[in-house]
Amino acid sequence: MTQQRHPLDLATSLEQNSDGIWCGNTQPDYGNMVGPFGGITSAVLLNAALLNADRLGDPVSLTVNFAGPIEDGPFTISAQAVRTNRSTQHWSMTQFQHDGQIATTASAVFAIRRETWQSTELDFPVRQPALSLARADTSNAPEWTRRYDMRPVKGLMIDGQQPTQEPDAITEFWIQDDPPRPLDFLSLTAICDSFVPRIFVRRMGRFPAGTISLTTYFHADTALLNLQGGNHVLGLARASKFGLGYHDQSAEIWSDQQQLLATTHQIVYYKA
Amino acid sequence: MTQQRHPLDLATSLEQNSDGIWCGNTQPDYGNMVGPFGGITSAVLLNAALLNADRLGDPVSLTVNFAGPIEDGPFTISAQAVRTNRSTQHWSMTQFQHDGQIATTASAVFAIRRETWQSTELDFPVRQPALSLARADTSNAPEWTRRYDMRPVKGLMIDGQQPTQEPDAITEFWIQDDPPRPLDFLSLTAICDSFVPRIFVRRMGRFPAGTISLTTYFHADTALLNLQGGNHVLGLARASKFGLGYHDQSAEIWSDQQQLLATTHQIVYYKA
Repeated sequence: MTQQRHPLDLATSLEQNSDGIWCGNTQPDYGNMVGPFGGITSAVLLNAALLNADRLGDPVSLTVNFAGPIEDGPFTISAQAVRTNRSTQHWSMTQFQHDGQIATTASAVFAIRRETWQSTELDFPVRQPALSLARADTSNAPEWTRRYDMRPVKGLMIDGQQPTQEPDAITEFWIQDDPPRPLDFLSLTAICDSFVPRIFVRRMGRFPAGTISLTTYFHADTALLNLQGGNHVLGLARASKFGLGYHDQSAEIWSDQQQLLATTHQIVYYKA
Repeated sequence: MTQQRHPLDLATSLEQNSDGIWCGNTQPDYGNMVGPFGGITSAVLLNAALLNADRLGDPVSLTVNFAGPIEDGPFTISAQAVRTNRSTQHWSMTQFQHDGQIATTASAVFAIRRETWQSTELDFPVRQPALSLARADTSNAPEWTRRYDMRPVKGLMIDGQQPTQEPDAITEFWIQDDPPRPLDFLSLTAICDSFVPRIFVRRMGRFPAGTISLTTYFHADTALLNLQGGNHVLGLARASKFGLGYHDQSAEIWSDQQQLLATTHQIVYYKA
């Protein structure tokens, strides 16, 4: 049974101890240059709230603050519903390593979603279908990139790929878990952090860089995610400002049915 | 002395009790329809970190989760530096009312900013100078709007103003504290929440709506904010998705010298 588990399920799995603390382990499958891929850390923090029996509704908002390096190995997460209202619930999560040192803090808002008037204010970036594009060769990139089938349209900038010639900070790609896995809030959360730091793209090179804080807004509920299945989703990321050692990133994640599933924002430390 | 204090300084003032808890009071000057203006709540939560003697550097990122209604009257804030690194510091803040009920949670990242390669990826929205535009009449709008000199370019949608005819979710205005006050992180934080909910603009009407979670990235350091003085800043807000009872908002705040001072994102509950 364990052998059939998807690597993403393994990497986000948690067991609750008798004190109510969630215990997990980083997984080599999602290793980054140092420690785990930030997207998988975000997903496991969200899972600490999702797994609670008294959790209300679907996630609407998730903020993860990467307070310190995460080392490969065991970690614990404390997750608390700090306030429950009629249709919303606010969560705080904290990830610890090494006897109580805080590695990551997070907050999430969950809500019972209801049909309302709806509108998408952005245009779907019309692109070639995922399967008409070549898969990026990630053989020289960190391990986690091999957990994804990434088909770059523009500006992916991972090792082994030619940099784009345009001096902008935009990346567009189709991305899918490899092996394919039906999209859910965990995989969508991880995908929201699957873009390389914008400084790599804008300056066409590698620089010391790391996400400091990451916020994701979920525009899909469980029902809409279930419709997506394991198909590729389209990711589009940009930056608005580089300066004083930090740059931002804003990204959109679209379903292949042209539904905006999530928008996600982060602030990234860099040295350049 | 107290009478000469700017209303924003009064509304964000905190006194630390012997347990290290910060004590404050909502102020009628920044009253909203119910309770205080969310921008002033964000600013006072940031201030609980800013006021600490061991606080490191300038704020880079701030997330505020509006967990429940805030009533007019006293509140307390607990603020903790959860992790201090060489050049960054992570804070968690919690606002309480009524004997320990959590009203608001927040997190912030502070950092020592250093000169690096820099670039602004957005174009400054070229507009008429603030003083060539008419000030919005906010006489029928909530009290906090009268603490600002707002000069709408497009889509402001406050009471007493004609709605725009374009069916989009964009607001642009020049905004300045009234009375004028040199820009700092507190006033910039408040201004980041000074846009009406995008559903008002997009549907050209009033609907039940409220910010649930608000994240601001600061692209300016103290030195750059000091250059701005008390001049108007330009605010530009949009939405990407309305649906299932929530919509997002992304906004830019620019100095009149065309510097991008902050980008800010929020997710908003609405009924429409």
